[in-house]
Amino acid sequence: MRPRFYAPKANISGENIVLPDYEGRHLRQVLRLTPGAEVALFDGNGNEFSGIVQDVAGNSVVVRVGSQSSPPALEPGIAITVVSAVLKSHLMDNVIKYSTLFGVSAIQPIVSVRSEVSLSSLKQGKRMERWRRIAVSATKQCGGATVPSILSPCSFNELSKNLTEVLDPESPQLMLVEPSSSHDCLSISELKKPENRRAALIVGPEGGWETEEIEKGSTLFKLVTLGSRTFRAEVAPLVALASLFTAWKEF
Amino acid sequence: MRPRFYAPKANISGENIVLPDYEGRHLRQVLRLTPGAEVALFDGNGNEFSGIVQDVAGNSVVVRVGSQSSPPALEPGIAITVVSAVLKSHLMDNVIKYSTLFGVSAIQPIVSVRSEVSLSSLKQGKRMERWRRIAVSATKQCGGATVPSILSPCSFNELSKNLTEVLDPESPQLMLVEPSSSHDCLSISELKKPENRRAALIVGPEGGWETEEIEKGSTLFKLVTLGSRTFRAEVAPLVALASLFTAWKEF
Repeated sequence: MRPRFYAPKANISGENIVLPDYEGRHLRQVLRLTPGAEVALFDGNGNEFSGIVQDVAGNSVVVRVGSQSSPPALEPGIAITVVSAVLKSHLMDNVIKYSTLFGVSAIQPIVSVRSEVSLSSLKQGKRMERWRRIAVSATKQCGGATVPSILSPCSFNELSKNLTEVLDPESPQLMLVEPSSSHDCLSISELKKPENRRAALIVGPEGGWETEEIEKGSTLFKLVTLGSRTFRAEVAPLVALASLFTAWKEF
Repeated sequence: MRPRFYAPKANISGENIVLPDYEGRHLRQVLRLTPGAEVALFDGNGNEFSGIVQDVAGNSVVVRVGSQSSPPALEPGIAITVVSAVLKSHLMDNVIKYSTLFGVSAIQPIVSVRSEVSLSSLKQGKRMERWRRIAVSATKQCGGATVPSILSPCSFNELSKNLTEVLDPESPQLMLVEPSSSHDCLSISELKKPENRRAALIVGPEGGWETEEIEKGSTLFKLVTLGSRTFRAEVAPLVALASLFTAWKEF
């Protein structure tokens, strides 16, 4: 397989484009490619092109866009927004990385009662930029061509309003809870694939949701479980996505 | 929930038992429990008991076994043996941890062509002991009461013979491959639940299987895929188990 690079400006065959700085560094310093090398370029919106390296000498790496091609992984037939309570640093990195492997369309970080971080520190810090890089890197690894949007963090209370802007009213909004926390929850494996092909999956922090969050969630969202087992917060989205992909025949 | 401890000797109500050293240290030094504290004890074979701490003063922690109770997580209705190529240290730790969360019955480490470790170094080193501890710890976390057996490592070539000893002939032996590696593979979501309720799931190393391993595997095992996406080696067993649990209605 030719080396693949994220090139958000790749959309017209025959044009020369400049790779983003970190992708250019990877091409030049890690893979040590030289002019004439054949590469693949994906634009983050599901499109992939062949490309030929033109110039690696200056500060920028220039690649000529070739013909459009199919990315190695098919895009999923359903657009899923993963909503995750912000976990401690490397655990949240894993949530971003693992969700991206499934080709989700967006990731919405939220601050819940038990989150150990505040909204204002998230908005000021560099974590959003870090998460975007991780999403690009995971997209390269899994063979997809769509980089999920990392949405601006919000509180659990703002979530319902934010989801209304992203999804249409028919889309299921699935809040993952432990089975012991509510009698009124469905197993993920019983869920029907939504006809409008959009859904949101909402997963909680280390230690789980607070009782009042589950109560509020039960009025706004559909509560779902993964059987009687307790999965750690950083793998719960991955397990839930794998289960949804199976139930909805995306695997 | 009462704190839970692994107590392989807990099987007769009313008896006093000594916890394994590392469980005793956790009870005394981390949770700082004292005589009279109520705990739960699981024996690793699916049984759980209440217990009352008797003595924490000496080198050993003594607990009186109470009545039998149900573990928080139900045991899965199917006994799955996860076979995993040995990955680099912390990645293999994750394979052990994540597989245990599903309540699998055994984990078989194997050395494949691309594994970066030899069988003899695995058998001499302390990794087996480390993996057993990780399995106990993950069993506590997920609420299960069955600690998977960590089987003695073998080579890919010995695997078929070893599996014959663990499984009966009707049990599916599923080898996870990338879809590009063979035209003759089934999607995991299409698999029927085996009537004898036993199965093996075989997953490869970083970088995937060698061509000759896939050729050999195709004659011995059933090749399966997870759609067209490429999952990193340390999460592939988790994704495959979540998919099997969904397809087989274990969630």
